Amino acid sequence: MKAEIISIGTELLMGQIVDTNAAYLAGQLPALGVDLYFISQVGDNLGRLADAFTRALARSDVVLTSGGLGPTEDDVTRESIAAALGETMVVQPELERHLRAFFTRRGTGMPERNVKQATLIPSATAIPNPKGTAPGWWVEKNGRIIAAMPGPPREMTYMWENEVAPRLRKLTGGVTIASRLVKTFGIGEGKVDEMLSPLLKSNNPSIGVYAKPDGIHLRVTAKAATQSEAEALLQPMVEKVLATMGETVWGFDGDTLETSVGALLKAKGLTLATMESCTGGLLASVITDVPGSSDYFKGGVVSYTNEVKAASGVDAKLIAEHGAVSEQVARAMAAAVRTRCGADIGVGVTGVAGPSEMEGKRPGTVFIAIDDGRAARVFPTFWPGERSVIKRRATTSALFHLKKLLEGRA
Amino acid sequence: MKAEIISIGTELLMGQIVDTNAAYLAGQLPALGVDLYFISQVGDNLGRLADAFTRALARSDVVLTSGGLGPTEDDVTRESIAAALGETMVVQPELERHLRAFFTRRGTGMPERNVKQATLIPSATAIPNPKGTAPGWWVEKNGRIIAAMPGPPREMTYMWENEVAPRLRKLTGGVTIASRLVKTFGIGEGKVDEMLSPLLKSNNPSIGVYAKPDGIHLRVTAKAATQSEAEALLQPMVEKVLATMGETVWGFDGDTLETSVGALLKAKGLTLATMESCTGGLLASVITDVPGSSDYFKGGVVSYTNEVKAASGVDAKLIAEHGAVSEQVARAMAAAVRTRCGADIGVGVTGVAGPSEMEGKRPGTVFIAIDDGRAARVFPTFWPGERSVIKRRATTSALFHLKKLLEGRA
Repeated sequence: MKAEIISIGTELLMGQIVDTNAAYLAGQLPALGVDLYFISQVGDNLGRLADAFTRALARSDVVLTSGGLGPTEDDVTRESIAAALGETMVVQPELERHLRAFFTRRGTGMPERNVKQATLIPSATAIPNPKGTAPGWWVEKNGRIIAAMPGPPREMTYMWENEVAPRLRKLTGGVTIASRLVKTFGIGEGKVDEMLSPLLKSNNPSIGVYAKPDGIHLRVTAKAATQSEAEALLQPMVEKVLATMGETVWGFDGDTLETSVGALLKAKGLTLATMESCTGGLLASVITDVPGSSDYFKGGVVSYTNEVKAASGVDAKLIAEHGAVSEQVARAMAAAVRTRCGADIGVGVTGVAGPSEMEGKRPGTVFIAIDDGRAARVFPTFWPGERSVIKRRATTSALFHLKKLLEGRA
Repeated sequence: MKAEIISIGTELLMGQIVDTNAAYLAGQLPALGVDLYFISQVGDNLGRLADAFTRALARSDVVLTSGGLGPTEDDVTRESIAAALGETMVVQPELERHLRAFFTRRGTGMPERNVKQATLIPSATAIPNPKGTAPGWWVEKNGRIIAAMPGPPREMTYMWENEVAPRLRKLTGGVTIASRLVKTFGIGEGKVDEMLSPLLKSNNPSIGVYAKPDGIHLRVTAKAATQSEAEALLQPMVEKVLATMGETVWGFDGDTLETSVGALLKAKGLTLATMESCTGGLLASVITDVPGSSDYFKGGVVSYTNEVKAASGVDAKLIAEHGAVSEQVARAMAAAVRTRCGADIGVGVTGVAGPSEMEGKRPGTVFIAIDDGRAARVFPTFWPGERSVIKRRATTSALFHLKKLLEGRA
């Protein structure tokens, strides 16, 4: 099965945004056994877009698009598909009802121009989009398929995973893929590459190494005729990877550190509080990204100045003696916020986010303390980089150590 | 002058890399007054690539390519151009000498397959590439131009800036672009589109509407023969947009709300503190993303439970009487954190991030209070969505209202 991707939007041709949607979809197709020969970016222009669809339908079995499904005059993906197929768009009463209900829930009326998001052509059915107002289009005609998805990556990936990929999987049959994502933290991409060097030569299963904000991810993938054969091929390689990476591994597939930490806290009936300086609230924000986090997260303090640290229970003498960025102050922050918020576990994070040095310490210097009332552990780290990278890495590091402690493994 | 970009390389179709070269080139063309209608990614395949060149030469004046100029059998950009134009590649003794000298300097012999990097067709001249071994090709035939550049971004951008862009600038004879990005917050894309409807029909200057996490952005672009003419054309349209969008406008071009708020606080010598519940630390984190924010940000409290709110100075009776998600509690949070942290301005944010209701209030219900010690203002908002969207929007909303208050405009 031959596929082609068309990413739609004038902003792609202005260089204002990079087309990550196409790269995402391209990365998804091999697992479905679908070959990809062409990707293109086309602006919001009816004539050029209709041409692009006509050409794509002449040479590809499946055309995947993202973008141009919005309510504005600019958005002409539907119109272009209709033009390429010589069909007419008709408002669907049920889709319209659904759309109006969305705006009613939002407490506003529906702008009249949004009604075009409720249209279909005879060859198309609507693909549900619970993440936004624009349903996608699934078009089948003359043995060709068009799947038109919305442009916002969050909406597009959701629709791909839950609607479009399953439909394509049914159509392709054939080769199956088993795949596992192993997530590590604490060592760099080059070092991981070196450690896995003998395994990386393997072709099936294969291993991909990806640097992500929450550490290095390893994608192990096996292909076979059936799912159980693919799984059987996959498993020994995953075990080799786990044996090699040891304690740096913190999760698999869709796991996030904040979700795993939350599940552990819930299971153990423990509560958490944070006091952070260099991460500036990011640690608390990531923890509270998890629905239901109010069950175990009591609250936190962003102690961006020494006065606020002192007012929140950190002994000012410690700061004067050791500096705000020190093991001692991290420890005192964890203990103080634990008591103040009445939590079982307190986490303290102090460090230098940069770009300037502080107290003679270089950006990237961070102390993370975890106090459970019986014992306190401090993890000093140094990993330089940009301000946002330091904040993100310190946050990940705090959650990583917290997870290991909750598992009794550090 | 109409241009088109072809990015060449099978890895682009595997989703292994994102095509940043195309986005870079796309961003460069407006300033040259060159219109870009198509971008595509094509694999290292002679037949498909030759087709892509034939089609591109039929519809575009200039074809810019990157990739496929390496020495391996996979690299067939030259071969595809030759095939599309019906010309034959011939080794150029001078280029070959140059190439051999490069390898000699490196202390190795030249692998024989590299000799194809020293070829040309009659319509092509070589574009020097001091950053690598592969010279580019500048092809002129029948009034069409192909500029074939290497794939590695460092080599491509160098060749673009020093060789290709200057040649194109000469050819276009100076159409120039002036452009301004206007950033708004508080109303949806459909509504903005409706408000600007009469202006959106204009072709030069043109207006693009983009939905972003920090609101709706409007890109106004004007083309003219000189920069000052373009600016003169741009200005009245920008003023019309500003008049239409009124108080929803909060910034231009590279502005961010957190940077603007920080600059205003610094200029006025004021300090800030935050107490937040539903945003869970995101507001403090965004504020502290700005380098130097420790000059004006004292700190914050993430009061995720009523006990922490009470322990941080919010009257428990207010919570019992009005609920934690209420105008009264938002006001008390702003006042309490202002006092506790010794700041000039306190911001309180309380709301329901979801997915569940709280106190019978629906996810998306948020109260933002700002207290400067003399007066307190509360902004109730309701904008439903996913948890992460609600957190992000409440944070943006708090910064937006804070900016307007600091400017004395709300």
